[in-house]
Amino acid sequence: METKAFVARLRPGRKEDYIEAHNSFSSDLRARYRDAGIHQIRIFLLGDQLFMYVEADDYEKAQAALAEDPLDQIWQERVGPMKNPDFQPLTEIFRLD
Amino acid sequence: METKAFVARLRPGRKEDYIEAHNSFSSDLRARYRDAGIHQIRIFLLGDQLFMYVEADDYEKAQAALAEDPLDQIWQERVGPMKNPDFQPLTEIFRLD
Repeated sequence: METKAFVARLRPGRKEDYIEAHNSFSSDLRARYRDAGIHQIRIFLLGDQLFMYVEADDYEKAQAALAEDPLDQIWQERVGPMKNPDFQPLTEIFRLD
Repeated sequence: METKAFVARLRPGRKEDYIEAHNSFSSDLRARYRDAGIHQIRIFLLGDQLFMYVEADDYEKAQAALAEDPLDQIWQERVGPMKNPDFQPLTEIFRLD
């Protein structure tokens, strides 16, 4: 299992759109993410800073599988323009579980 | 179960100390955290920005129990001065699991 974390910034004025989009993330899309080997996603906001935490069997493989999926393509076309493209990966330095 | 997430900044020059301290987080202290009802902690860094993610039965209760614990007091005295005190809570807006 891989753990990945990223920060990014939302574009000005897109915060409510971003939250609304995620509130309507469909159960079909959830199923596709799980089928792609994604076990957990958490997204947090602080102002326009977005923090995303992902647990996946193989993150790159999951990304590649979802990139081929028309449902996820529609989703990415919707939310992609709400974010700045400069996702920055974080380094995990501590884990308790 | 509660999920909490925070960001904070490390003080200048304390990043390596902070990582080193967490590498030596003892198994005794892990047991105390679990006994206090903390199920999961993840800490990530991006430069001097620290992101912490916690899952606990009751976060406030866990904090209160650990504040009474001499082992955690020693730990907090060690790492507390490495961080700026302005922890900022994040808002969870999406969850897949």
